[in-house]
Amino acid sequence: MSFGVLDGDGQVAQIEGHPFGQISFTGARYEQADIRLLSPILPSKVVCVGKNYADHIAEMKGLTGDAPKEPLLFLKPSTSVIGPGDAIRIPAGSTNVHHEAELAVVIGARGARNVSPEQALSSVFGYTIGNDVTERDMQRSDGQWTRAKGFDSFCPLGPWIETDLPGVGLDAADLEVTCTVDGERRQHGRTSSLIFGIPTLISYISRVMTLLPGDVVLTGTPAGVGPIRAGQRVECTIEGLGTLANSVADADAVSTAGGAR
Amino acid sequence: MSFGVLDGDGQVAQIEGHPFGQISFTGARYEQADIRLLSPILPSKVVCVGKNYADHIAEMKGLTGDAPKEPLLFLKPSTSVIGPGDAIRIPAGSTNVHHEAELAVVIGARGARNVSPEQALSSVFGYTIGNDVTERDMQRSDGQWTRAKGFDSFCPLGPWIETDLPGVGLDAADLEVTCTVDGERRQHGRTSSLIFGIPTLISYISRVMTLLPGDVVLTGTPAGVGPIRAGQRVECTIEGLGTLANSVADADAVSTAGGAR
Repeated sequence: MSFGVLDGDGQVAQIEGHPFGQISFTGARYEQADIRLLSPILPSKVVCVGKNYADHIAEMKGLTGDAPKEPLLFLKPSTSVIGPGDAIRIPAGSTNVHHEAELAVVIGARGARNVSPEQALSSVFGYTIGNDVTERDMQRSDGQWTRAKGFDSFCPLGPWIETDLPGVGLDAADLEVTCTVDGERRQHGRTSSLIFGIPTLISYISRVMTLLPGDVVLTGTPAGVGPIRAGQRVECTIEGLGTLANSVADADAVSTAGGAR
Repeated sequence: MSFGVLDGDGQVAQIEGHPFGQISFTGARYEQADIRLLSPILPSKVVCVGKNYADHIAEMKGLTGDAPKEPLLFLKPSTSVIGPGDAIRIPAGSTNVHHEAELAVVIGARGARNVSPEQALSSVFGYTIGNDVTERDMQRSDGQWTRAKGFDSFCPLGPWIETDLPGVGLDAADLEVTCTVDGERRQHGRTSSLIFGIPTLISYISRVMTLLPGDVVLTGTPAGVGPIRAGQRVECTIEGLGTLANSVADADAVSTAGGAR
């Protein structure tokens, strides 16, 4: 099995071997426009953290209340994951699907169970970008967020996994997060504003549920969430990680054949 | 790979082949006491339905409110699954972990996506028993139920998958569900009291998220939920399906080495 990684000049270099093990470059190189990147990881679970930026809590207060005393966890199913360039599909009849750009942590080959905050970063393989797509009306009416956040295609991940952030390695404590829709900036924040930082989150989650290799933790979204509709293009950008771009389409307009993965 | 199935005289017969394909009996037979049954399925996800029996809604009203107009979905992570006889582990400091006996639907090799209620039963491989173990204090304080229901060991499944219920085949619309703790009956109901029946649930879920082969749907719990503590034994029994029995232990008393699966 081979994986593509981007290097400094925007080309994709083919690698051989599973990223959790030893890898080598095959020497083959491609222009990014000539290939289709898939989600860089197929996690067994995506563990998400709600209400983790103060400015987002403020804008959502009428729906989701005050800041939590402990990290607020929820899950997105593995079937919601799509890759860069794939279409976010709006469920039939829905008019209130929102983007939520987030830093995504990818757990490494050791997994994580009962780790301390001090040990937590040694469980991290790298980082990518996630979009915690959410149907806001269903979130409100259900109370539990599973349906609103669990539709097929509601978890774009990518464009790749960064295992060595420029100048900071695996310390993602102060990265800029933005989201644009059709080029217009909607969300903007920095991971330094996270109420619960990455080591705290991984430790906390690992004391509840074992994090398996390749599992993904979505760390919360900053202010500026808002609706997206068919025909639009959503771009989530994180400093040092690149841009995760997805189109938006009506669920009816996409063949159902590709839905199961 | 081989799987054990019980026959009429209480013995386990070894089978060859994956249960979704062609299977054959090897001829080897064992007494049930001489073997350890694992969870009969390792699902990619466990989709659960809250508040699906009127008598349970009534007993929980102060915490979870009125009957829902549509099925209320939540997820348990695959890492919460344990098998028959395994210990449910009480998290450190917790004093309010409850049993919730439920009929579990196992999805078959075709999966289910956008199926109608009329098509739904053709997506069912069979049935087993689930215990939707829940930390009631965390359920209340978090609001979202993921942590309260997501601890490792909080989803016992088993003892086996029944693909042909006595006299009714795959129609599980009227089965008795009971739960005992140390032999004392705590929960009692019939699946005929489900607010949303099995075909409706599978159809509804499949219009949100693709159900993959082997995925499990927990259909809700009847009245009588209550606390369990270390040293007790919980038995969930469903008519035609047998009994799922689990011990209860403090998390600290169990080696962490076996936690990741």
